[in-house]
Amino acid sequence: MAQPFSIEEIIQFRKDTPGCNNVIHLNNAGASLMPQPVIDSIQQHIELEGNIGGYEASALMHTAIDGFYHAAARLLNTKPQNIAFTANATDAYTRALSSIPFQKGDIILTSNDDYISNQINFISLAKRFGIVIKRIKNAPQGGVDLNDLDKQLKELKPKLLSITHIPTNSGLVQPVEEIGSIVKKYDTLYLLDACQSAGQKELDVTKLNCDFLSVTSRKFLRGPRGAGFLYISDRALDLGLEPLFIDMRGADWVAENTYIQRKDATRFEDWEFAYALLLGTKVCIEYCLNIGVDRIWEQTQYLANYTRKKLEKIIEVRLLDEGPELCSLITFTIPGLEAESIKADLLKEKVNVVTSYRNFAVIDFDHKGVQWAIRVSPHYYNLESEIDFFVEQLKLIIKNKH
Amino acid sequence: MAQPFSIEEIIQFRKDTPGCNNVIHLNNAGASLMPQPVIDSIQQHIELEGNIGGYEASALMHTAIDGFYHAAARLLNTKPQNIAFTANATDAYTRALSSIPFQKGDIILTSNDDYISNQINFISLAKRFGIVIKRIKNAPQGGVDLNDLDKQLKELKPKLLSITHIPTNSGLVQPVEEIGSIVKKYDTLYLLDACQSAGQKELDVTKLNCDFLSVTSRKFLRGPRGAGFLYISDRALDLGLEPLFIDMRGADWVAENTYIQRKDATRFEDWEFAYALLLGTKVCIEYCLNIGVDRIWEQTQYLANYTRKKLEKIIEVRLLDEGPELCSLITFTIPGLEAESIKADLLKEKVNVVTSYRNFAVIDFDHKGVQWAIRVSPHYYNLESEIDFFVEQLKLIIKNKH
Repeated sequence: MAQPFSIEEIIQFRKDTPGCNNVIHLNNAGASLMPQPVIDSIQQHIELEGNIGGYEASALMHTAIDGFYHAAARLLNTKPQNIAFTANATDAYTRALSSIPFQKGDIILTSNDDYISNQINFISLAKRFGIVIKRIKNAPQGGVDLNDLDKQLKELKPKLLSITHIPTNSGLVQPVEEIGSIVKKYDTLYLLDACQSAGQKELDVTKLNCDFLSVTSRKFLRGPRGAGFLYISDRALDLGLEPLFIDMRGADWVAENTYIQRKDATRFEDWEFAYALLLGTKVCIEYCLNIGVDRIWEQTQYLANYTRKKLEKIIEVRLLDEGPELCSLITFTIPGLEAESIKADLLKEKVNVVTSYRNFAVIDFDHKGVQWAIRVSPHYYNLESEIDFFVEQLKLIIKNKH
Repeated sequence: MAQPFSIEEIIQFRKDTPGCNNVIHLNNAGASLMPQPVIDSIQQHIELEGNIGGYEASALMHTAIDGFYHAAARLLNTKPQNIAFTANATDAYTRALSSIPFQKGDIILTSNDDYISNQINFISLAKRFGIVIKRIKNAPQGGVDLNDLDKQLKELKPKLLSITHIPTNSGLVQPVEEIGSIVKKYDTLYLLDACQSAGQKELDVTKLNCDFLSVTSRKFLRGPRGAGFLYISDRALDLGLEPLFIDMRGADWVAENTYIQRKDATRFEDWEFAYALLLGTKVCIEYCLNIGVDRIWEQTQYLANYTRKKLEKIIEVRLLDEGPELCSLITFTIPGLEAESIKADLLKEKVNVVTSYRNFAVIDFDHKGVQWAIRVSPHYYNLESEIDFFVEQLKLIIKNKH
């Protein structure tokens, strides 16, 4: 399999990325290295705010601000009116979750691999309102069992289906197009957490059939920390769903005890947010679209396969990823070694990776019988030689510790 | 009354503030002009994230990040463990609000002057859970009637008292120390919205007796947009209150359907936020503490009085502020004129003010019988000559429009 990107292209992406001079960044599933145009757009807006005032700056930049909604809409194949800016993906996710008026006994159907914070939120809703959490069985190869999904949707009539497209602690890609075509047969609302997939894999809401989709800026989209957005479908808007903590941007206060909700996705936004980060998000989406998400997916698939192949050859390493399709999150454990010291040793060599622990993914890690994992997540601007260096260093660490 | 700040001091503050070269900024209640050290701290952290990675940058800066919690604690006279960073004041406010497990019929007691988004949130809770909204009578001079407050607390046993220290659309300062000494006699939880007071007026939680206090960075604290924080009292923490949408920072996921909440205020934080804006918030608080909140209050009182006196002399202007104490938000209307064109005309002369409308403060504006107001909000770095210029321009506008 050849790399879809030419070396000239990759060199250009690396020239655009100041961090490539300093580190081997294999933590793109944590937060990617931002390209210079993203850094510039954030810094310039902070400077503008300092020069003329915060509200005055956002008024002056209204065309670029509108551009964020257009860019996000292009990324997801929807309309700008269906996009709400948020403070991060969890913020986006909980705004959607908060809009569903759960009653005691209502069921949330989810996977065994949904993101930890989503799982914690379900438990909180169960404690507070008596909702019931049900989980779809995993297929033998990993990922949700589509027959069990269909069966549970039919029999349990859950109020909500929540799926995390790509979990944060595993290379699994859930079969979301198949899931979407099953859930659309039922009335169940469908919330898709696309935090790890946005910028890595195509997200077309006309194919995904979700009611809500939550995204972060800082991961494979290569945007700033503390920014994200939410897609809200026309169906969800037409149903009148609104965030529980709706504010003066989301609603018009018309009389002492009456408000009128906005018609479009601004209903889900706060009055106040960091416009500098919104503008950084606009630029990172445009940068991504300019390259093409399909090509990025091919390149990250190439590098992920390359990395897995290399790691498979190290006898002490146990690769942990399971699923019908795997992505550029590569997780592994090394029995007998200690995660934090591996990460620290790699950091000394300027190789960025992260550790995760059982309590980040209780169900998955218990299933796999592991206490910790190292996660390596190359992006399209990484080089094969960077992977080679990381693997060499890892071998040295293993040799020294064993 | 003499200005408490010497002209040398004010010149230094203005030298620290690049925006002072460009605009007459009388919109500090919207968002202040940031001092250069705040701008620098944000830009430098964005640069660091670009150079070494987002998570790697926050790991490297952990001492400065801790410094934010210490600075915020000093500002409020509490411990760092009682501070949670949030995306804005409304975010802080709703995290606190969401932690109260309201049942049908529970009462929220509030003022007629609470911030619009708080009021919209109460209406949302009433629609969703059947809570009941009660409002404290205003005293004849404006602000809450303390006897009525005591009476309603005693008779209605509200679950929550919510008070906005300084409303966004009026110069009113609520008598919060008196309110605090009354509410502490009862079991009612007390949430104080200090969005417009932080950085303008002393906030000592040992005197305020509140369970929660919400703050924004961008207003009188002179910090960045899209940042704020929440104080959570030991009482609220000991009661086990937790945000409805608690995430992996706030809780430890220990088994499939079980989590354990954190002991301190991190329970109220999201896993992800904009560390660049947190660091900017740290610096703006330190800058404020370095000058001294008491002295800032005296100076803004001086400028607010100066402004009101000047405006009183314009026969067409109707000043709107009512209350036992007034602050540096000065609101007025001009019968027969149109708000947006006044704002635009002033902006042409590089004078920043804002407009507000009846639906920003339904109860207050209906009481005053007005449809719109201009809000002028000088800060300690503004000059009397800037107020003079603004008043001159306003007179010209009135002359040309009438």
